[in-house]
Amino acid sequence: MKILVVGAVAAGLSAASRARRLDPSAEITVLERGSRISYGACGLPYFIEGQVPSIDDLTVYTPEFFQKERNIHVRTGAEVTALHPARREAVLSTGERIGYDHLVWAAGARPRRRFSDPRVFSLHTDLDALRLQSFIEDNLPKTAAVIGGGYIGLEMAGALRARGLQVQLHDRGPHLLHWSEDWLTRLLTERLQQSRVPIHLNSPVADPASLPHQLILTAVGLAPNAEIPAAAGAGTGRSGALLVNEFCETSLPGVFAAGDCCETRHAVTGASVWVPLGTTANKMGRVAGANAAGRRERFAGIAGTTVVRVAGLGIATTGLSPSMAALAGFDHAVSARITKREKPRYFRGRPVTVELVADRRTGRLLGGCVAGDIDPTGRINVIATALHTRLDAGQFAQLDLAYAPPFATVMDPLLVAAQQLLKLLD
Amino acid sequence: MKILVVGAVAAGLSAASRARRLDPSAEITVLERGSRISYGACGLPYFIEGQVPSIDDLTVYTPEFFQKERNIHVRTGAEVTALHPARREAVLSTGERIGYDHLVWAAGARPRRRFSDPRVFSLHTDLDALRLQSFIEDNLPKTAAVIGGGYIGLEMAGALRARGLQVQLHDRGPHLLHWSEDWLTRLLTERLQQSRVPIHLNSPVADPASLPHQLILTAVGLAPNAEIPAAAGAGTGRSGALLVNEFCETSLPGVFAAGDCCETRHAVTGASVWVPLGTTANKMGRVAGANAAGRRERFAGIAGTTVVRVAGLGIATTGLSPSMAALAGFDHAVSARITKREKPRYFRGRPVTVELVADRRTGRLLGGCVAGDIDPTGRINVIATALHTRLDAGQFAQLDLAYAPPFATVMDPLLVAAQQLLKLLD
Repeated sequence: MKILVVGAVAAGLSAASRARRLDPSAEITVLERGSRISYGACGLPYFIEGQVPSIDDLTVYTPEFFQKERNIHVRTGAEVTALHPARREAVLSTGERIGYDHLVWAAGARPRRRFSDPRVFSLHTDLDALRLQSFIEDNLPKTAAVIGGGYIGLEMAGALRARGLQVQLHDRGPHLLHWSEDWLTRLLTERLQQSRVPIHLNSPVADPASLPHQLILTAVGLAPNAEIPAAAGAGTGRSGALLVNEFCETSLPGVFAAGDCCETRHAVTGASVWVPLGTTANKMGRVAGANAAGRRERFAGIAGTTVVRVAGLGIATTGLSPSMAALAGFDHAVSARITKREKPRYFRGRPVTVELVADRRTGRLLGGCVAGDIDPTGRINVIATALHTRLDAGQFAQLDLAYAPPFATVMDPLLVAAQQLLKLLD
Repeated sequence: MKILVVGAVAAGLSAASRARRLDPSAEITVLERGSRISYGACGLPYFIEGQVPSIDDLTVYTPEFFQKERNIHVRTGAEVTALHPARREAVLSTGERIGYDHLVWAAGARPRRRFSDPRVFSLHTDLDALRLQSFIEDNLPKTAAVIGGGYIGLEMAGALRARGLQVQLHDRGPHLLHWSEDWLTRLLTERLQQSRVPIHLNSPVADPASLPHQLILTAVGLAPNAEIPAAAGAGTGRSGALLVNEFCETSLPGVFAAGDCCETRHAVTGASVWVPLGTTANKMGRVAGANAAGRRERFAGIAGTTVVRVAGLGIATTGLSPSMAALAGFDHAVSARITKREKPRYFRGRPVTVELVADRRTGRLLGGCVAGDIDPTGRINVIATALHTRLDAGQFAQLDLAYAPPFATVMDPLLVAAQQLLKLLD
């Protein structure tokens, strides 16, 4: 069995490793266009911020590790330019052809737009980060504009602020973050303005190079690296990303896909969605790798869980916000939002805001947001688990959550929010 | 409608408040034997420790608040000594009789044994805490023994150590905490010994007063305050606590029960169990109160979730440990335990240990434990949610959990533990 994996970051290396574990005799090759593999791209803003001393600290494994420990051949600088699914061959930019029995396409995504002005940056790859770092060190810019109020834009605004730059942030729409709720945008805007990062909403920037700032960081979305399988006939979704079934199979025979290059099923709506995130890439890669090695495992899809830290504030979301629920066709979504201390005052508990969204007709939970000067991951993960298992608000309100004064309150803010939601559903 | 509630701590006041909300016209009376209502008994160890300045800081509401804001009459110093279910009357120690249409028995629990030696203490009520506080202030004891290695014993060992006493801890069995696993007992023992609290396991103490210490704290379990309904004919379980159905009804007509005085259904085993905890009391009280007001709400039962802080270590458990699973009749329980950093090294992530237990035949999760120098509540709550919803290890391993470097790792320790468990289930 010859297994060929295209892409050596999260999804690709998870796929190759899992395939190796399940099939000790397969011939497994991973092709990577770049020179660095297995790096945590989500850490790049923290490299710019100075929290991560060297970009090497973001690298988990080397090609040598894969060769020696897992008998997986990793080729860097190897760019696939075409697939011939009928002959089961991949063609490299050098003209070299590599045959496969099963292929896992895990080529990731790229910034939707790149700009040629030397002051304008994206932050997507290790090379982007190194170029930005050099620019800052060489030119000592004093002012920066960040374009895009999603989580990368917000993280980068914080990172550049931490480096001492004067930063302002533009977003073309009326909200920060995809949760798209006024209260959250207000909370973020206030906090960022306290950190002296002015926010300009409803402020589209047609040409970043037209801005007067000494550094311009664009974070206006990604495009999936799906063109090559698509040119070979693989089906794609409305996002342009590859369509896969629950076994991570594309429409091409023997070709699986995983990670930022493909869509997956949303656990709440059931729709095929494109939400490129490293967590999904890792888990989906495992399934694609298992199936490339002959298994029939299913990928359960995603809840769309995210977390970000902005100016000390932790903000986490999962599932659908009220406006996302309306767009997804839930005409009777209701939401409740409460702010409560996360532990007793005598343990210096800080206020945390919890918003929960439910379908009024069924009571089913549709999504949630947790925000405050705390780590919101534990609570958002409870909501995400509830979304995966289709809990209704009544069941959620009775979850047996942990309590001890150093850590929590007897009625967790999650449960208080659920009780509030139940009043709306009564 | 006359609703009578017996007990004014967690379950009783939740019941009365919920009943009031659902029935604005009911006549609602709460009887409390003691003089203080609505106090957070779980905070008492932290009052002794000095973290809580005054016991009043543990009091959430006063009788006046209930009278004025909720039109609920709270009578303190009112002890019920008998029920006459046929006449629907409660009898007080004064001989006074109070009629009811529906009664909620929420009289809590008490230490299984009390001792007359003035050096020997329990810590269950506000009065226990005040007496212990006075004893320490008046007698300035230098040495203390704590009997019982459950969470109250462990919290009190820490509290007395923080007050400067030399403390040793005895348990009659081979383990600390009910999770009863060697690795956890070792971890706790090491940590406590670093804090200079020697641990004596397999060390039963027949008579605490025989110990030479200047202060002896017993924390050897509770007994349910169920005798009065039981004498009136209410059914009790093997624990001696009241049996209730999912509507929180006892076997006496018109008599509901909630909280530490009754059993409830375990979400994993389905058995009726007695696990007296404030979190359960609050949620169960709400259901009993709703049903006393004429609703038909169900209480979903418990997963048995607990958390405790011991010498800086956070330890949380839910569901069944391997040994508990065996006792509950799961003959094919398997467990996996991993230790991983909870966030990246560059954000000073600390190691956290996760143990997950599953039924080998079905893959279903049965329980989990999370321990480390961290707040373990978020992760244990995810496992508890999975237990409530009967997830199997494969589903759990694919949960869409949040990731950002300041807060988490791309593959959360929960998911790594689940993947490890899956290898055992393969």
